[in-house]
Amino acid sequence: MVVDEIPGFWAVVPAGGAGTRLWPLSRSRSPKFLHDLTGAGQSLLEQTYARLAPLTGDRVLVVTGEAHRAAVREQLPALPEGAVVAEPSARDSMAAIGLAAALLERRGAEVMGSFAADHVISEPERFAASVAEAVAAAREGWLVTIGIEPTFPSSAFGYIRQGAELPGHRSARKVAEFVEKPSVSVAEEYLATGEYRWNAGMFVVRPSVLLDLLAEQHPDFAAALRAIAAEPDRLPELWDGLPRIAIDHAVAEPAAAAGRVVTIPGGFAWDDIGDFDSLATLLGDDDACSVLGETELAQLVGASGIVVPRSGRMVAVVGLDDVVVVDTPDAVLVTSRARAQDVKKVVAALKDRGRTDLV
Amino acid sequence: MVVDEIPGFWAVVPAGGAGTRLWPLSRSRSPKFLHDLTGAGQSLLEQTYARLAPLTGDRVLVVTGEAHRAAVREQLPALPEGAVVAEPSARDSMAAIGLAAALLERRGAEVMGSFAADHVISEPERFAASVAEAVAAAREGWLVTIGIEPTFPSSAFGYIRQGAELPGHRSARKVAEFVEKPSVSVAEEYLATGEYRWNAGMFVVRPSVLLDLLAEQHPDFAAALRAIAAEPDRLPELWDGLPRIAIDHAVAEPAAAAGRVVTIPGGFAWDDIGDFDSLATLLGDDDACSVLGETELAQLVGASGIVVPRSGRMVAVVGLDDVVVVDTPDAVLVTSRARAQDVKKVVAALKDRGRTDLV
Repeated sequence: MVVDEIPGFWAVVPAGGAGTRLWPLSRSRSPKFLHDLTGAGQSLLEQTYARLAPLTGDRVLVVTGEAHRAAVREQLPALPEGAVVAEPSARDSMAAIGLAAALLERRGAEVMGSFAADHVISEPERFAASVAEAVAAAREGWLVTIGIEPTFPSSAFGYIRQGAELPGHRSARKVAEFVEKPSVSVAEEYLATGEYRWNAGMFVVRPSVLLDLLAEQHPDFAAALRAIAAEPDRLPELWDGLPRIAIDHAVAEPAAAAGRVVTIPGGFAWDDIGDFDSLATLLGDDDACSVLGETELAQLVGASGIVVPRSGRMVAVVGLDDVVVVDTPDAVLVTSRARAQDVKKVVAALKDRGRTDLV
Repeated sequence: MVVDEIPGFWAVVPAGGAGTRLWPLSRSRSPKFLHDLTGAGQSLLEQTYARLAPLTGDRVLVVTGEAHRAAVREQLPALPEGAVVAEPSARDSMAAIGLAAALLERRGAEVMGSFAADHVISEPERFAASVAEAVAAAREGWLVTIGIEPTFPSSAFGYIRQGAELPGHRSARKVAEFVEKPSVSVAEEYLATGEYRWNAGMFVVRPSVLLDLLAEQHPDFAAALRAIAAEPDRLPELWDGLPRIAIDHAVAEPAAAAGRVVTIPGGFAWDDIGDFDSLATLLGDDDACSVLGETELAQLVGASGIVVPRSGRMVAVVGLDDVVVVDTPDAVLVTSRARAQDVKKVVAALKDRGRTDLV
């Protein structure tokens, strides 16, 4: 991959989220981003870092839970000192990304881009080109989001409705609005207009612009983040008082309404691997059975779907279509692609039963 | 259970069969009869012995493969010396039961009854009553089979067509013919006539009558069995020359054609647990999910079928009907009740791959 480093650009990688719909692969003590879910030989976090480092060099901040700090360090030994920011507790994306913005504001970073640790992106050159264009717009003071070109009418993602073109930029468009996850039929209407993109939660912005936008809606929140950045020792004291709110609601939606957000088209394949159904889509074709892991540990007779043999044991599947079988050393999951969303109910039920060792 | 011992009556228990459709529970080194498949707290062999011992006391012979002799002894410590007959190799049911007949003929046994080690029977009093009536008919020189009253038009069992009543007996009928496994629609016609019973392979007969019937069809076979009984040291030498043939074909069918077989109604629930579908039928109702083993190791969300957690791990099933999940320490099987017959294809495929450690 030949891409150019972008001067003054920092990558922020929020590494959080429980991933309960990917249980038993994803656990609270070992969430989704620490796993190789694509058979690439790298975890999603490692893949994310490998995609960003050519653009930023050492200018990377990973924001993760205190419990995962060591695992992040272990997977990314090249991270410089101070590049892992540990949250005392999970407080949703505004606190995580806002803290990074406040720290980077003090360090004099020109532009930051936030990219989740557990998304899958192919075609890194296209990704780099979109980021470069996003950074150029962000330098002018815009809040910039990279909007993914939809490939099917997904009901699992939020959408971005594009507005007018941004003069002086190759492909930037104003964001008319962010819309919540639609039904499939509404998503079909969106795709027919050609004016909608998937909201992948990728925001590129000057740190001070982000904090100032936050301050317009939640002045105390922005002030607390800047106070922590000024005196890092106050993190434990101030953190628990921060609101639990997503960056979309706290900043992006009101800023879009005020005409201050632009979007850059992302012409690369992207997925957030929300559940085993989307993982099966990502890995395989509909007629075959994908094996994520050692193929010699799967014995398939008339089966399609996805099999994940991760315990060393033989996994035999006979005569089931669109099945999901995930085998780990202490738990095995069997479901269908259509019911993959309900895997979180298993996690909830196990918690209720006190089997927190398994979740 | 209050049943009377039947004087001069010996039980023969053929303990063989691979049970490949019950993989990975049943393995070649640990076949079906050694397992507790009903959650009764006893293996099928132990249940079979417990059902027979009240009728026979010490007069029991278990015929099994050399490889399983120790396991049989371990499960049935009450068996007297010499009660386990080890076959050098598997040679089908005629050789196994015929060898027992030849041994018992020399010991002066009056009547023997052969009952497979891996069948499930409830209502032991009814079973005992049927056996007592069968023994009474057998003493008169008949080959007697206990015919199970069919509860549904099974295509998995052979059938017995009843003929005329046997004078002087409460419910014995001549056997008009044995018929092979029919289609479901043919089985429905059988049930509508009221004249058919399931052939459970239970034969009650004087040992010498059985051997003489065999001698009419296969004189060398009968002579070889009697030679082994006379000189047990010749077992290894003579065994491998014996034909591989089922007792049904070797003796029962020709004897029925000659009008020398009678049947006693078996009014007890019976199953040979041919596969996980029939096991699911035996254990549960159609709307719920049966758990064979520790129920706390199953986490079910909208599932029906059968789950067998036998590795200590959690087995979670979400949104699948009529599913079969069998979890063992070195292999997990996932299939549907409808495709349970095809589990043997997994065993064949694993053998082809050289994974004989798993089969």
